[in-house]
Amino acid sequence: MKKAVVLLSGGLDSTTCLALAKKQGFVCYALSFSYGQKHSAELRAAQNIAHHFGVMRHEIFNLDIGHLGGSALTDPQIAIPEEIEENIIPVTYVPARNTIFLSIALGWAEILEAYNIFIGISAVDYSNYPDCRPDYLDAFQTMATLATKTGVEAKPVHIEAPLMHLSKAETLNLGLSLGVDYSLTVSCYKANDEGLACGHCASCNIRKRGFVEAAVADPTRYIT
Amino acid sequence: MKKAVVLLSGGLDSTTCLALAKKQGFVCYALSFSYGQKHSAELRAAQNIAHHFGVMRHEIFNLDIGHLGGSALTDPQIAIPEEIEENIIPVTYVPARNTIFLSIALGWAEILEAYNIFIGISAVDYSNYPDCRPDYLDAFQTMATLATKTGVEAKPVHIEAPLMHLSKAETLNLGLSLGVDYSLTVSCYKANDEGLACGHCASCNIRKRGFVEAAVADPTRYIT
Repeated sequence: MKKAVVLLSGGLDSTTCLALAKKQGFVCYALSFSYGQKHSAELRAAQNIAHHFGVMRHEIFNLDIGHLGGSALTDPQIAIPEEIEENIIPVTYVPARNTIFLSIALGWAEILEAYNIFIGISAVDYSNYPDCRPDYLDAFQTMATLATKTGVEAKPVHIEAPLMHLSKAETLNLGLSLGVDYSLTVSCYKANDEGLACGHCASCNIRKRGFVEAAVADPTRYIT
Repeated sequence: MKKAVVLLSGGLDSTTCLALAKKQGFVCYALSFSYGQKHSAELRAAQNIAHHFGVMRHEIFNLDIGHLGGSALTDPQIAIPEEIEENIIPVTYVPARNTIFLSIALGWAEILEAYNIFIGISAVDYSNYPDCRPDYLDAFQTMATLATKTGVEAKPVHIEAPLMHLSKAETLNLGLSLGVDYSLTVSCYKANDEGLACGHCASCNIRKRGFVEAAVADPTRYIT
């Protein structure tokens, strides 16, 4: 049985990755992080999604990086923006977030003897986060192989980013072909406790445009 | 004022790094991890050392990787060995530990606008951990620059490993020249609650040989 660690935020992209990993025959170990994000409703979504897909285990890892500050996603003093400006890294960037998440996933994968980690990052229709780009991912892969006992022993853990070159609409079409129910997912940076989306933040706007471009019905539950 | 994040385990090497960073004029932010290590006495040592050196802030970061298992340092079922065998990665290896520690240090450095992280790793007189070698460190540096806003904006965070090519005796001589009181430090993997060292584990043996080679008195407090 081949195992995979799947980073699962509870959003659209990571859920599509989980569906893909399942389809590819992996026994999935889902990993979410409670890192002080304002939109902790995404964690409840992640729990529902992990259950829905019958993962072998779902870890919600407490990671108190939020109190260090530095991001609109964790700092009450910084407002969440509505639009992503071209070529500007927005205030929703969380310093080193994907590196921290992938590092913990790497440790867990090595312990589990899982040789694949799935992460739903994309460099298309994205938020200009530096840690979502192909050259970043390649560098993480090189580092990860040198960092680990399993890598040194020529059984490296592979970082899989199957959405890297897909637009949001293409990701949606992939997920729908795999039977994903996107009403389970929460992308909104300001989601309320029931997981209802604001419909106006930068993340909602990227998501909404994806459904429009894919020309499929948007099942997102918005605050009315 | 130039700032540095200093990874501080409470052991001999990280304390030497902290002394060096201070000497080089950095305002120091010490970072320790409570990760489920059996030898949590090292954290109390780290607190004393941070206070002694007058760091600006000392974060003891809770990181629950211990419950994932996979290492003699965290798993009660795995005994701590007494000797390091040549060219074998020992059971005290913690999967991806330095990568996780450095990633969190990277995030904190970016938030603080600190452009240097000090880590006391060495590839001489060491435990064959893959994440203590120069090629690993180079790969982490490359990844870290691509991962971060500050890196993309041409103000990368530099990972400093000033002990990388020093033997344990050379590290001790460096530290002593900087006035380090090594009786404050705890290296032992089986240190008791008072911070007394067992004198027999692999870490104690590396440390003891360092004092012998440096031909200086060993101030370590051993369990008698």
